Amino acid sequence: METVLDKNKTTHEVISLSGFLNHWQGHRSLTRRVIEAFPEEEFFNHSIGGMRPFAEMVMELLGIAGPGIKEIATGKTAPLNERVDHGSNKEKILQLWDRATDEINAYWAQIKPEQFQKPIKIFGQYDGTVCSSILYFIDNEIHHRGQGYVYLRSLGIEPPMFWER
Amino acid sequence: METVLDKNKTTHEVISLSGFLNHWQGHRSLTRRVIEAFPEEEFFNHSIGGMRPFAEMVMELLGIAGPGIKEIATGKTAPLNERVDHGSNKEKILQLWDRATDEINAYWAQIKPEQFQKPIKIFGQYDGTVCSSILYFIDNEIHHRGQGYVYLRSLGIEPPMFWER
Repeated sequence: METVLDKNKTTHEVISLSGFLNHWQGHRSLTRRVIEAFPEEEFFNHSIGGMRPFAEMVMELLGIAGPGIKEIATGKTAPLNERVDHGSNKEKILQLWDRATDEINAYWAQIKPEQFQKPIKIFGQYDGTVCSSILYFIDNEIHHRGQGYVYLRSLGIEPPMFWER
Repeated sequence: METVLDKNKTTHEVISLSGFLNHWQGHRSLTRRVIEAFPEEEFFNHSIGGMRPFAEMVMELLGIAGPGIKEIATGKTAPLNERVDHGSNKEKILQLWDRATDEINAYWAQIKPEQFQKPIKIFGQYDGTVCSSILYFIDNEIHHRGQGYVYLRSLGIEPPMFWER
């Protein structure tokens, strides 16, 4: 019986838990290289059309990823916080990025498969399921990273290849 | 036994087949509103940093979505084609978009759950699974749409809200 269930689960699922995590971390690895591609000064100050500099978008992503997965894993809600001290230092932000990478891996291991379709009000504010929330974290990152690509191109800098993760 | 399996499947899967389709079509609905937000002239000609105008990105998305899902559903491979006649007419491209929406729904219904983790060489060129290929279609759309947001902002136009699907 267990074998039948497991076999059925393995072959029929749209995406596996580990596949979903790898998908996310692959995107985060690409975003890290986009951060690296920015010159220090332009990372914090370059803007088009009144939009935020890329550093501010990255601080939003950092405010979402680690805290979001922590809330999903622990059930403890905290409001969204996009303001962590970084001293306008890109290296410091890359360190925060790497810490979030480790946090995501650690908390991911605590999430149970049966949680993914459960409702959650993430950051005490946004209604969805665990799955739709994580998809939103990823989509929001791709969205802003795509904007970072335009910033880089407008600075004459070639961004990393989109399909390299 | 069927009930146990179905119950197990429903509660344990990361994302359902219909949830995955809705996720994709929700993004496509937002992209359609981004296309609509562009003035006709700028849709075909506005560019930043030597990048393609948004119309060309959209033609790439159209070359991927319908043909990609058709290949997955039918097993018939065709090379990627980003050049469909549109007469530099935004309304014509919106019609192609709506046709692709219907095609995706129709072909999606033909895909079997057990296909998602199967290997596929999409467009005869890109190795992955059915799942990773569809995720790539979606991610690539979010990426280019994010770039369209910068184009719109640089034109002084407010894009649709990212979270509205």
